[in-house]
Amino acid sequence: MQEKERQCNDGGSRDNVNVNEGGNHETACFGKITVIGTGPGDTDHLSKKALEAIKSSQTVIGYSSYLKQIDGILSVAQERMPFNMKDEIKRCEAAVKKSMEGRDVALVSGGDAGIYGMSGLLLEIIEKKSLLGKIPVDFIPGIPAFCAASCAVGAPIMNDFCVISLSNLLTPWEDIEKRLRAASQGDFVIILYNPKSMKRKNELTIAKDILLETLDKDRPVAIIKAVTRPDEEIVITTLENMDKFDIVSMNTSIIIGNSNTYVKDFFMITKRGYGNKYNLDLA
Amino acid sequence: MQEKERQCNDGGSRDNVNVNEGGNHETACFGKITVIGTGPGDTDHLSKKALEAIKSSQTVIGYSSYLKQIDGILSVAQERMPFNMKDEIKRCEAAVKKSMEGRDVALVSGGDAGIYGMSGLLLEIIEKKSLLGKIPVDFIPGIPAFCAASCAVGAPIMNDFCVISLSNLLTPWEDIEKRLRAASQGDFVIILYNPKSMKRKNELTIAKDILLETLDKDRPVAIIKAVTRPDEEIVITTLENMDKFDIVSMNTSIIIGNSNTYVKDFFMITKRGYGNKYNLDLA
Repeated sequence: MQEKERQCNDGGSRDNVNVNEGGNHETACFGKITVIGTGPGDTDHLSKKALEAIKSSQTVIGYSSYLKQIDGILSVAQERMPFNMKDEIKRCEAAVKKSMEGRDVALVSGGDAGIYGMSGLLLEIIEKKSLLGKIPVDFIPGIPAFCAASCAVGAPIMNDFCVISLSNLLTPWEDIEKRLRAASQGDFVIILYNPKSMKRKNELTIAKDILLETLDKDRPVAIIKAVTRPDEEIVITTLENMDKFDIVSMNTSIIIGNSNTYVKDFFMITKRGYGNKYNLDLA
Repeated sequence: MQEKERQCNDGGSRDNVNVNEGGNHETACFGKITVIGTGPGDTDHLSKKALEAIKSSQTVIGYSSYLKQIDGILSVAQERMPFNMKDEIKRCEAAVKKSMEGRDVALVSGGDAGIYGMSGLLLEIIEKKSLLGKIPVDFIPGIPAFCAASCAVGAPIMNDFCVISLSNLLTPWEDIEKRLRAASQGDFVIILYNPKSMKRKNELTIAKDILLETLDKDRPVAIIKAVTRPDEEIVITTLENMDKFDIVSMNTSIIIGNSNTYVKDFFMITKRGYGNKYNLDLA
């Protein structure tokens, strides 16, 4: 077989991937797909590694609103492929298609791409196409929205915690209810994602009622909308009232404290146990 | 009162903090304390915001091993104050002292500073000293180790998850057991931090036995040591065997899949439900 001029990418990410090994060199010359979390919103929260991976890709694929957020760091030469919400499968298929054309692809996703993001679906689709281990893929972590949300109100996490999405688009609602009960019985700090959308209006109230089976109505709750973005808004309230605020939407994280959480001066703080351990007179 | 020449920091982080308002201007002229997560290890995973906050501080305080990791980004002019492990209270007290001397302080912590990090203890100590709302504080999120660990093996999280530390130094062991039971009953992806240390040898085996009350012995498990660091090591195994590997230490994250997790070609993937929703023939 004649050597092609264009060099194949070596993938770099996985020692056991060698796209040149065996098979038809021509068809095996895939571009690399890098799945990248773009963080909570403000691109100042991107890591150097994520930034460089985005800049060095030839095609950038993602939900249109996330592409808009990172547009300022892209060059005119980079191909942008924005997709609508819910078109996650089309995004992955486009990434695979571009890779098969030999182009390096950045598949971007808000927050961390491994948390309710694009990483898993991409791998499922690559596997379905029998290309797992052939297409070079890499995953670059990002700052999850809940970490930025937590920073915005002080230190509400600090100890063992759960993250639960209230969207039943992909997870059966009975699983969500089971997790809400388990999380409250385990005295975790509980973070709720996707508490409300255009179509889902009552889930947060149902979740509240489930949590109130176990937790006190005065349990501190922080509601953080659009964290790090220009329209950021924060409310600190109690479990009893957490469903009564207009700022709750798809872009809102809700942090429910555990039994060691308190609020002081608009800071939400979960004590981790230093006071007990060192016999300190901490609040 | 005569105006001092040196300008006070405005804090910037909280609208309701004004260190110049009332009181003695001289003593109220605090330096700002910024609590910063340094991420999983490799400084390429620092955000621009975290990097700039570290670089612009006059004094950098933290556990000696984290200070060593970021030493390359510090200037000779910056004061370094390394502390031993377990000296968390001393670190916070040093940060407060430096702030009271008018110096801007970066208090660094591995991963995200709000997850088992320094954020909460700093606030508790500032409150104990009746300085809450007086000392300007800011919190900058970092990439948690478990996000980098997840990226290293593909997409094991993807859906609702819990993070549980197996260290009973600050959390009573019975609380940890309760959380392990709740997490497995809720079918969460479960991430274990601090699975083992010099003094704690058997906790991971006890945790395994608790999880096996509910979960199948073949449940996929990823063990990721020192993620993004030169000594990174990865094992993909099953729940039954997760306590049998030497790489398990304080620097190891363990990710236990939920009922939708599978392993293929050294990738660990948690299906999120796209296959069911769109009637796709996904693996």
